[in-house]
Amino acid sequence: MKALLSLKSGKKYTINQVNDFHCKEGLITKESLSSNGLIESNIGIKFLLSDANNFDLSQKIKRGPQIIINKDLGYIISRTRINKHSTIVEAGGGSGAATIFFANLVKKVITYEIVEKHYDIIEQNLKTHNIDNVELKNKDLAEDIEKIKDYDMLFLDMPEPSNILTKKLNGLKSGSYIVCYLPSINQIQELIVEITKNKGYFVEEVSEIIHREWKINERISRPAHQKETDHTAFLVFIRKI
Amino acid sequence: MKALLSLKSGKKYTINQVNDFHCKEGLITKESLSSNGLIESNIGIKFLLSDANNFDLSQKIKRGPQIIINKDLGYIISRTRINKHSTIVEAGGGSGAATIFFANLVKKVITYEIVEKHYDIIEQNLKTHNIDNVELKNKDLAEDIEKIKDYDMLFLDMPEPSNILTKKLNGLKSGSYIVCYLPSINQIQELIVEITKNKGYFVEEVSEIIHREWKINERISRPAHQKETDHTAFLVFIRKI
Amino acid sequence: MKALLSLKSGKKYTINQVNDFHCKEGLITKESLSSNGLIESNIGIKFLLSDANNFDLSQKIKRGPQIIINKDLGYIISRTRINKHSTIVEAGGGSGAATIFFANLVKKVITYEIVEKHYDIIEQNLKTHNIDNVELKNKDLAEDIEKIKDYDMLFLDMPEPSNILTKKLNGLKSGSYIVCYLPSINQIQELIVEITKNKGYFVEEVSEIIHREWKINERISRPAHQKETDHTAFLVFIRKI
Amino acid sequence: MKALLSLKSGKKYTINQVNDFHCKEGLITKESLSSNGLIESNIGIKFLLSDANNFDLSQKIKRGPQIIINKDLGYIISRTRINKHSTIVEAGGGSGAATIFFANLVKKVITYEIVEKHYDIIEQNLKTHNIDNVELKNKDLAEDIEKIKDYDMLFLDMPEPSNILTKKLNGLKSGSYIVCYLPSINQIQELIVEITKNKGYFVEEVSEIIHREWKINERISRPAHQKETDHTAFLVFIRKI
Repeated sequence: MKALLSLKSGKKYTINQVNDFHCKEGLITKESLSSNGLIESNIGIKFLLSDANNFDLSQKIKRGPQIIINKDLGYIISRTRINKHSTIVEAGGGSGAATIFFANLVKKVITYEIVEKHYDIIEQNLKTHNIDNVELKNKDLAEDIEKIKDYDMLFLDMPEPSNILTKKLNGLKSGSYIVCYLPSINQIQELIVEITKNKGYFVEEVSEIIHREWKINERISRPAHQKETDHTAFLVFIRKI
Repeated sequence: MKALLSLKSGKKYTINQVNDFHCKEGLITKESLSSNGLIESNIGIKFLLSDANNFDLSQKIKRGPQIIINKDLGYIISRTRINKHSTIVEAGGGSGAATIFFANLVKKVITYEIVEKHYDIIEQNLKTHNIDNVELKNKDLAEDIEKIKDYDMLFLDMPEPSNILTKKLNGLKSGSYIVCYLPSINQIQELIVEITKNKGYFVEEVSEIIHREWKINERISRPAHQKETDHTAFLVFIRKI
Repeated sequence: MKALLSLKSGKKYTINQVNDFHCKEGLITKESLSSNGLIESNIGIKFLLSDANNFDLSQKIKRGPQIIINKDLGYIISRTRINKHSTIVEAGGGSGAATIFFANLVKKVITYEIVEKHYDIIEQNLKTHNIDNVELKNKDLAEDIEKIKDYDMLFLDMPEPSNILTKKLNGLKSGSYIVCYLPSINQIQELIVEITKNKGYFVEEVSEIIHREWKINERISRPAHQKETDHTAFLVFIRKI
Repeated sequence: MKALLSLKSGKKYTINQVNDFHCKEGLITKESLSSNGLIESNIGIKFLLSDANNFDLSQKIKRGPQIIINKDLGYIISRTRINKHSTIVEAGGGSGAATIFFANLVKKVITYEIVEKHYDIIEQNLKTHNIDNVELKNKDLAEDIEKIKDYDMLFLDMPEPSNILTKKLNGLKSGSYIVCYLPSINQIQELIVEITKNKGYFVEEVSEIIHREWKINERISRPAHQKETDHTAFLVFIRKI
């Protein structure tokens, strides 16, 4: 796979170099796609060609429900200190963006997705990304959670995580985290009221991550106009006692 | 290792349960430290005891120079899509906070630290954290960079990354990232002016990550007063063509 | 003038009640516009009718160049503590949004606008808003600044404020502020380098104001998706010694 | 009054030039205080002397309860478009910081402060600042609100503004604003639930203002470490129909 960046429009394409590539900015022959660097389309527009990296591939994810974006995914990893020996259980996988990200970093991911349509999207995305360390289930996590053994983090991207947290999380190690991903403050407040009744949990942090891009060149240095949704969701880090 | 949280002061301790534990909030006997949950000090202050997790351990890092914090570390991973099969080369390791974080996630980290005092701190921190996949060198990266082979990301936490980027990064794969960590806008502007002269790089993103903690309980839901430095540094993601 | 808010689309209209009002959400007869409260269009869409306030009027400003928005305008007033007895000199008035805002608060505004097209827009906007305490000049402020007497604040919304600040600001009282409005960090750095050579000024603050709207109702409480440009410009508060 | 800025420590003093001035950075004779510019203390520390401006004076307010700061005060003015012909009614005046700010801008302020200790602080601060257009009452606003006539804005800095808003605001003009200042999201949600039952009001905006200072000189350009509380309160702009 190759990444093609138009120096005119700033548009990015992730492409396969077995065929000529057509876009609004012209035609690029498959011969031009053979060596990285500056190339030109047939109408004279300049492109930078490089090998596609994992970030480029992650952009090609087939989208169903809203995906969790990098600013949040990264903080989940760094705040919980999950590592390559860890097992993550997650529910509400959506399109599988978090699933794929986690799977590339940790030993194993067990993903529950109750909505069949979303399950299918995740399954397809896992295949495209060559992920083989995910156990994907088209089932409600609430049914299984008490039986799952030996995992290091529970990630819940669902509106009512209390449905899971009122169960017994027998397999989650003491000191490990449950991370909830909730867009609205009142959902968090409800969750915390519920959690506080339970002796086995402690809410260690509620936070949001704000990602601010800058436009910087020789003459200009200012915050960029936002491309992405600026608010996604709040992150709640709950520790198992 | 155990994590002890005072429900009175909110203070956290990472402790060894082979001895009694003394602090300003009283004495906790080693017998009390045997089972997780609610325990009490001899002066009646309540604590939550759980197994220490990786995050607790990361808090115990011996500090030399300013460490890179979670908000930034996480985004580096999620934006570059580095994974458990990757090799990272880094320079300006400081206290080794980034080194340890990366080493727990990826296959191998090659770390250059020119200042001997910092090198010693990193070495000690790696030992304490049982890290065995780091090649640590007390040397200037500029001397070696052209010879290093097959790596997937270059992380530069140094005031003048141009000193490295004007060399030939033969071992960094096409499409991979150089990530620079710079506190001041004018450093970035200088870097970008320098980079732009070079046909082999493309500046894909300059951004900052803002971490905002919230205080939420049954009655209150508002942003918390900041504990950490709110500004750390800007992140520059440069792609190799 | 009346303000009409559609409870369906959330759209706002500032209207004159001498005629029937037509919009995509139906027809509202001038009879319906006679008493405030809940009214309905001929196709059954509900609207809230109230008297227009000054904020509604300010939204109707005829736009030429980008206008300065409320988050910045307000802070200029509160940080400089300009009041109803003050005189403000400003240049680079653009559409007159700042001019009208200031004029409604202070005794007198002296506005310089060198571009004739912008001068015409400001003149027209002042007329529409019934402002009579503005002295508007289609001239370069640099020519006049040394002669202007007795003013309490100088507001410069122009890319190179140094052109003015290298002159003698004889009429600006000691302790008073020059406020510069600059979108890019490097413009500020250039300004500060220039200013620092001059014994008569002191840079007291450089800051930016971020305005974050929230969506809050019975069920939801989260940051709203941004409607306005999130970055406008930085504010530089320079004090005359 | 004079403003004295230490070029060594960055400390600011607002002083009276009738006496010599002593501080930790030395003695400055009253003779030195006669002309603005660069002066020196007896131990050789350099100071910049200028006339004190209104902002300096506002810093000398005698503090009781937490005061409302400039970022919020400014936006209240710019968002409501209150002007020099306006009358403001406010309650929960605290130390009078908002009262003094408003009084310097508008025709008249009517301030209710039920706590006698706070009332005394406000009274004293008004005297020190030579404010003569404030009607200050040591009384609960709820008792009087239905009788107050012809005002243009109601500002409520109190935990339960519903106590006022469930009364009839006969004197507030149609289209005018009630501005509530509330630190916690759940207070706003409660207010909005209450307000929504009432046909006479419409919640036009909930927002927060974030003030970010920058440190910029010849070599550095980065966000400054925060001096002030970063979160103060949210602003709710409610319109009377």
